[in-house]
Amino acid sequence: MIIDLTRNIHKGMPFIPFEEAINIEPSNFPGFPEVAISSFKAFSHIGTHIDAPYHFIPNGKKIHEIDVNRFVGKGHLIDLSDKKRELVVLDDMPKTTIEKGRIIIIYTGMAKYWPKPREQHTELSEEAAKHLLQYEPKMIGADSLALDFVKNNFKAHKAILGADVPIIEDLVNLGKLIGKTFDVMAFPLKIDGLEASPARVLAKLHLI
Amino acid sequence: MIIDLTRNIHKGMPFIPFEEAINIEPSNFPGFPEVAISSFKAFSHIGTHIDAPYHFIPNGKKIHEIDVNRFVGKGHLIDLSDKKRELVVLDDMPKTTIEKGRIIIIYTGMAKYWPKPREQHTELSEEAAKHLLQYEPKMIGADSLALDFVKNNFKAHKAILGADVPIIEDLVNLGKLIGKTFDVMAFPLKIDGLEASPARVLAKLHLI
Repeated sequence: MIIDLTRNIHKGMPFIPFEEAINIEPSNFPGFPEVAISSFKAFSHIGTHIDAPYHFIPNGKKIHEIDVNRFVGKGHLIDLSDKKRELVVLDDMPKTTIEKGRIIIIYTGMAKYWPKPREQHTELSEEAAKHLLQYEPKMIGADSLALDFVKNNFKAHKAILGADVPIIEDLVNLGKLIGKTFDVMAFPLKIDGLEASPARVLAKLHLI
Repeated sequence: MIIDLTRNIHKGMPFIPFEEAINIEPSNFPGFPEVAISSFKAFSHIGTHIDAPYHFIPNGKKIHEIDVNRFVGKGHLIDLSDKKRELVVLDDMPKTTIEKGRIIIIYTGMAKYWPKPREQHTELSEEAAKHLLQYEPKMIGADSLALDFVKNNFKAHKAILGADVPIIEDLVNLGKLIGKTFDVMAFPLKIDGLEASPARVLAKLHLI
């Protein structure tokens, strides 16, 4: 069973922090008026998206340079959705070991506040980020619009991207993963030189 | 082992048929000059991409409406790369049965002519397309920039999209799939209302 963890991108959706995050230009194919054809302009961090190390690390990998083996892996959910915190701290992290090489997904519960996500913006502390990095995750994702932001001085971003680990943001449907074992497939576009890209992210539930 | 079947999207790349198919606008985050942040404008059919039925079928599914179960499946390669044809005809199709529900990939060899792909543009005939549809594929893909085009009056596009089967175009690295069994993961963005989207497409080789 496959679950879509991707937010539907549409004009007027909330995001951080730029105007006109998505614009679609519908058109027609010359001579074939029945053919729908379009262009779109997108903020690289619109909707569910992946940050490459280069977003914060000047010599870090850009989105087209990330090893594709990072995009597919066993998932590990950390469910903090009932905690309603502004900052996820070290004490919120699981006391048990996480298997190395997982795609770690933090369910802050923030996505529940959509379309007013800033009413409960949950950020990851630097200490919690560093705790997770010891398990060498392929990626770290969350349902927050930004894993951390100005208030936290982007310390979690810098720690994770500085360890060459991409970040997935604005995931949806994470509640469907509670108590399940699952694989994650999180694919950004391959656009030369970008620091991030909108992504399609699916989870495949294990039935046993 | 995972193989990237996705073309790297960059400014100035060949495509069909519009100008300025990709434009990247690098910027900085206000107050944080070290943070790379960008927008991009893309033709929805730039590079490796997926056509939704709506591209040719006015009441067909748009890209955000496609069932995600179509995006992951066992692959089946049809290798025509040594035939060098303008039109792939019914007689080029495999004589043996293809298992239902596969993601069928046609290796025309056209990608070898990059960056002058039009020197050997290979199109799929309507008869060949209809032959493949009897096997109820999840998707049909190829390394051609367009599965068929004006010369063929888009008959293959219309047959396949009319059967509610999405099309993947401009795949690369298909030679690495010859003689292999593999799964395909082909993910478009989830942008509301588009008739197509750039996609990330990976193959996972089976080791036995």
